[in-house]
Amino acid sequence: MNFCSNCGSSHLVFDVPEGDTRPRDICRDCGKIHYSNPRIITGCLPLWEGKMLLCKRAIEPRCGYWNVPGGFLENGETAEAGAAREVREEALAGVEIIGVHAIFSLPNFNQVYIHFLGKLKNGEFGVGEESSDARLFLESEIPWPEIAFQSSTFTLRHYFDDREKGIRQVHLGSL
Amino acid sequence: MNFCSNCGSSHLVFDVPEGDTRPRDICRDCGKIHYSNPRIITGCLPLWEGKMLLCKRAIEPRCGYWNVPGGFLENGETAEAGAAREVREEALAGVEIIGVHAIFSLPNFNQVYIHFLGKLKNGEFGVGEESSDARLFLESEIPWPEIAFQSSTFTLRHYFDDREKGIRQVHLGSL
Repeated sequence: MNFCSNCGSSHLVFDVPEGDTRPRDICRDCGKIHYSNPRIITGCLPLWEGKMLLCKRAIEPRCGYWNVPGGFLENGETAEAGAAREVREEALAGVEIIGVHAIFSLPNFNQVYIHFLGKLKNGEFGVGEESSDARLFLESEIPWPEIAFQSSTFTLRHYFDDREKGIRQVHLGSL
Repeated sequence: MNFCSNCGSSHLVFDVPEGDTRPRDICRDCGKIHYSNPRIITGCLPLWEGKMLLCKRAIEPRCGYWNVPGGFLENGETAEAGAAREVREEALAGVEIIGVHAIFSLPNFNQVYIHFLGKLKNGEFGVGEESSDARLFLESEIPWPEIAFQSSTFTLRHYFDDREKGIRQVHLGSL
């Protein structure tokens, strides 16, 4: 932040506001305190007849790698609606949200992933604009070294573990 | 947003960037796209010997009402560390996080609550700076009309339901 988004002043200091415990960007002219907080990446692992749908990323970062469909939660959305939207955008597919599966924090990147499990509607899907491919994988077919992010590896591994044990639970992880 | 926080220009338009699907604040001078996304409110319901710890808010909004300890997740934190910090700040208490309990979205306020269950360490607590009181409640003692937010009511009701059924699950809700 170089200028105050409220008054346009360049007199910003990074200091602890009165009554606060952490430094923030504060405008010396209008007094506005500018907060910065982690963002949510919401996603969904779509399931269909024992397989799961992954998308190959057509955009950076990790272009060309396979991923659980997901992206930044937008204003005005619930976490689950955002996850379903991402599946629609990246895999041109509808999902019925089953429930939360994982919360994975990346404190160094100020991001928190919320991953849901979903049921693919009618098993139909395509390749969205931000994807170069989309495919249903059996567990034995998952291209582990080509998974885009550790959040996705975490979600997939725990999904297979749970399925083998016949349980459903929510997994908490961080990097 | 009145001024570009990157270059200080007032030539901002609210328009859909190329390749995007939603309008954003875009600077006509430096081209910077300013994204705005929902914030996470992370919290924890501390449990101790069949009771649960609530804090009476000493700050607005909902000053004087009882609440599940919680607040905005900060940069650099995991969701669970943020929840434990909020309990420390609001109730001067340590908790051992048991697991996720509820994800409650407020799309009209661009907020997502993540509520954990936690075990109060040694049953000890106090009254933090942002609280005017803190108390362990039995289910029969919960002051339902004086609960600060619907996210907290949601978390408490589902906790009691689950406890009666002897199960633990994660609840998804929105308002």
